[in-house]
Amino acid sequence: MGEPTSPVPKLGAKPAGTYLRNCWYVACWADALGEKPLSRVFLEEPVALFRDGDGIAHAIAGRCPHRFAPLGHGTVVDGALMCPYHGLRFDGSGACIHNPHPGGHLPDGRQQVYPLEERHALLWIWMGDPAKADPALIPDFSWLTDPRWEAVRGATLAEGHYELYSDNILDLSHANFVHPALVASAFVEGERRFWQDGETVHAEYVRLDDTLSEGIGGMLGRLGQKQDFYGEVVWHAPAVLYFDFRAGEPGTARQECTLLPSLHAFTPETPDTTHYIWATARDFALGNAEFASGMRAALEYAFQQEDMPIIRDSHRLMRGQDFWDLRPLILNGDGGGVRARRMLQRMIDRESAS
Amino acid sequence: MGEPTSPVPKLGAKPAGTYLRNCWYVACWADALGEKPLSRVFLEEPVALFRDGDGIAHAIAGRCPHRFAPLGHGTVVDGALMCPYHGLRFDGSGACIHNPHPGGHLPDGRQQVYPLEERHALLWIWMGDPAKADPALIPDFSWLTDPRWEAVRGATLAEGHYELYSDNILDLSHANFVHPALVASAFVEGERRFWQDGETVHAEYVRLDDTLSEGIGGMLGRLGQKQDFYGEVVWHAPAVLYFDFRAGEPGTARQECTLLPSLHAFTPETPDTTHYIWATARDFALGNAEFASGMRAALEYAFQQEDMPIIRDSHRLMRGQDFWDLRPLILNGDGGGVRARRMLQRMIDRESAS
Amino acid sequence: MGEPTSPVPKLGAKPAGTYLRNCWYVACWADALGEKPLSRVFLEEPVALFRDGDGIAHAIAGRCPHRFAPLGHGTVVDGALMCPYHGLRFDGSGACIHNPHPGGHLPDGRQQVYPLEERHALLWIWMGDPAKADPALIPDFSWLTDPRWEAVRGATLAEGHYELYSDNILDLSHANFVHPALVASAFVEGERRFWQDGETVHAEYVRLDDTLSEGIGGMLGRLGQKQDFYGEVVWHAPAVLYFDFRAGEPGTARQECTLLPSLHAFTPETPDTTHYIWATARDFALGNAEFASGMRAALEYAFQQEDMPIIRDSHRLMRGQDFWDLRPLILNGDGGGVRARRMLQRMIDRESAS
Repeated sequence: MGEPTSPVPKLGAKPAGTYLRNCWYVACWADALGEKPLSRVFLEEPVALFRDGDGIAHAIAGRCPHRFAPLGHGTVVDGALMCPYHGLRFDGSGACIHNPHPGGHLPDGRQQVYPLEERHALLWIWMGDPAKADPALIPDFSWLTDPRWEAVRGATLAEGHYELYSDNILDLSHANFVHPALVASAFVEGERRFWQDGETVHAEYVRLDDTLSEGIGGMLGRLGQKQDFYGEVVWHAPAVLYFDFRAGEPGTARQECTLLPSLHAFTPETPDTTHYIWATARDFALGNAEFASGMRAALEYAFQQEDMPIIRDSHRLMRGQDFWDLRPLILNGDGGGVRARRMLQRMIDRESAS
Repeated sequence: MGEPTSPVPKLGAKPAGTYLRNCWYVACWADALGEKPLSRVFLEEPVALFRDGDGIAHAIAGRCPHRFAPLGHGTVVDGALMCPYHGLRFDGSGACIHNPHPGGHLPDGRQQVYPLEERHALLWIWMGDPAKADPALIPDFSWLTDPRWEAVRGATLAEGHYELYSDNILDLSHANFVHPALVASAFVEGERRFWQDGETVHAEYVRLDDTLSEGIGGMLGRLGQKQDFYGEVVWHAPAVLYFDFRAGEPGTARQECTLLPSLHAFTPETPDTTHYIWATARDFALGNAEFASGMRAALEYAFQQEDMPIIRDSHRLMRGQDFWDLRPLILNGDGGGVRARRMLQRMIDRESAS
Repeated sequence: MGEPTSPVPKLGAKPAGTYLRNCWYVACWADALGEKPLSRVFLEEPVALFRDGDGIAHAIAGRCPHRFAPLGHGTVVDGALMCPYHGLRFDGSGACIHNPHPGGHLPDGRQQVYPLEERHALLWIWMGDPAKADPALIPDFSWLTDPRWEAVRGATLAEGHYELYSDNILDLSHANFVHPALVASAFVEGERRFWQDGETVHAEYVRLDDTLSEGIGGMLGRLGQKQDFYGEVVWHAPAVLYFDFRAGEPGTARQECTLLPSLHAFTPETPDTTHYIWATARDFALGNAEFASGMRAALEYAFQQEDMPIIRDSHRLMRGQDFWDLRPLILNGDGGGVRARRMLQRMIDRESAS
């Protein structure tokens, strides 16, 4: 009698959204996948994640070809993923290697396999052509496993289209309105710059000699002290973002400011729901569990209680319509989000054309 | 860290219903709108309600033109409604008067403005052509602010089409079956009369020398005493109803009977959901909080626990079909509802034609 | 102030599924229908169940022809079903026999009547042509009322298509994976045979000299003892199943083994939801309430916490598509389910053709 599994989401017969497929999406935190497999939906496709006998993580199509049960709700037996319904077992190549029923005939077909890479404490999944799945394309988040850094982190399922979530990070000016405790006016009043570099999009925020918010000031132990601070967001298609936040005594060289690196990764479950995986690290107060717990609670509150409701509601108010058809008013802060949306659209168009 | 806002309802790209637009709908109780704005959906349109620096209430389109956030979840700053997401501010004319972002360029466009009138302790909204929004068309509910009367009141969101809710009030015979504690058999057995007067529809119930229900009898302090009683419902398009209930010693002139005036206002949120705003007043036991609390509890129970479930289920059993296509059986008690439905249909047709 | 009634399910204007109509479906346990009527949806049609003054159970169309209220949420007055909304009363012939409103005119039309038979402690409903409703077609579950047997039983509403639920019982091999506490490996490893006999489908499982599961072993007081055991499932269209389970000392003649007879009846509410009615009986430990309570809890857990989630998820993963269009892999254990599906399809086709 285990704990109840959460229901598979309701899905239409055909995908309702259009997605970039040849790219790495974050599937989950690597340590979220232990002995127990996971059932997930990415890009409206059910996926089963499991580790084989050597601990290697695999991702195969999540619907059993026999009676459509969710393989990700199964168990691992002798290194193979056993269907929870009638016990067929599949290995990491998608092959059925065990049929417990009389005759034991093994079916010819294979489950679709999704390339899966374990890197930077994350599992990265490739939802497109496996031949193109080059691990070198995975963005560098090596600070997530670097012992000099200690990260607080989380993962949740969020309502709203994933591009609304990446827009949110690229336009940090929202923080002043949505996260009053976390960030002060600096991201609105500071200098901003947006640019594209190859297939990445960058948003930079610089604010010199200003007071930090209570949240960030407290986190850095510099409450009430004026600081120079610098923020840079780097967007990787389709929606994996690095946020480089630095603060220091006025006049400190940027590279010598205290850095708080963050990950914000958004993986579409459906056009209306998004897996949100996040982390923020520090290189001070290492091993301080109380500090980490407070930092984690503050960030989780900001993302789940402040960002998510407003993005959910904005998504609903779009009423299923296309973003550009709604003719959004463009403000200065949209320089990053607009570049990312256009880049992603070009990449999807290019992929569809080939 | 405020209390969580309730989610915006899910809406289709186009309205699913057809509505009368050039008329006054009740938006909410006037005192429900304080310093904090409100986010509402009327006729499938998101609306933001707020008070400016002078306390004047305004209604503007509830979706921010920038990133579609719900303006009604924002805050009022210097008398203007500030978007909760990126801080644009709008005044009561729908103009964007402040852009906190670098450059501070103000967009040319304006948010749609809905005429809003504060009258009789209610906010009345006009969802049609502003040029036609004549406050003189607001029905008279002055007893709601008359110090000789003290009202108990409520507001809730109810499942079911708003016409089913106005039908319910126009056919008071339901009370005998749905509200056994509140009203006895009088509304079934008494004399009824239905008529139309201009664009209002009237339903009258007269019952002489009969016993009041326990609920009403107790409320009037006349438990077990025979009474004459009179009920008149007045319907104003599309679904604002006045209920004039009077009871007195047998033989008392109607005008001298004790009056309990009621408001029942129904404003469609969607074709399937309705804002239900109600009040009942008395001119006795004024200032008696315990009495008021009991009266309010009894009425709220009747509306929310007795009317709403049966109307919700009747609505569901209509399976999205047109009322007349279902060929309803017409009983004597339908004289009011049928007149109101036909009148409303004529008014909608006339409006569509022009 | 009674307990709140559960909402009528949301239904489309037209049925979304295709059903066999000329057959007996289980409506509910006979004793679930007492003085209080019941509101149910079968085959996407609202039905009201009630007992008249003689205690005879009737089923009529569940939507009042007046204002579409759910008749099954009404009350029985003088042996007739009174609408909860405006008090029309209907007898078991579907005729409106009382109109409490002035004039009291009785409408000509009748509510549709569904043949209803009380047999084997169950109410059986015929959703097709009443002229063809032959009670002799009701499968024999007389052990449910035989005093030599004592049954534990239940009824619940389950998510998923009803054929997935009958497949589940026909392929008992699932028990080894889905109900580890209840049944051991015998249903996978034992000998199986599937056949059709007229319009019934049979699945047989035989396993000699093997250990019972903890659950079944404990229930029979034979924990750890080797047994011969025999299982036979008999399917009646569209989804009423008898499960004959026997166990005894190795070498015992099959007819002399201890029998645990079970009923599994599935009645579609909609294409996505199913009424699941079940019972298992024993002829020992009669009157032992503690034993019965433990047995009931174990079975309810198995059906509601183990079967239902996996069938709900399999149903969702079918994404509204046709079973055969999904080209399911056929295993040995599917011999019963596939026969039943084909038989049912033939019967539906035949019915549609005539």
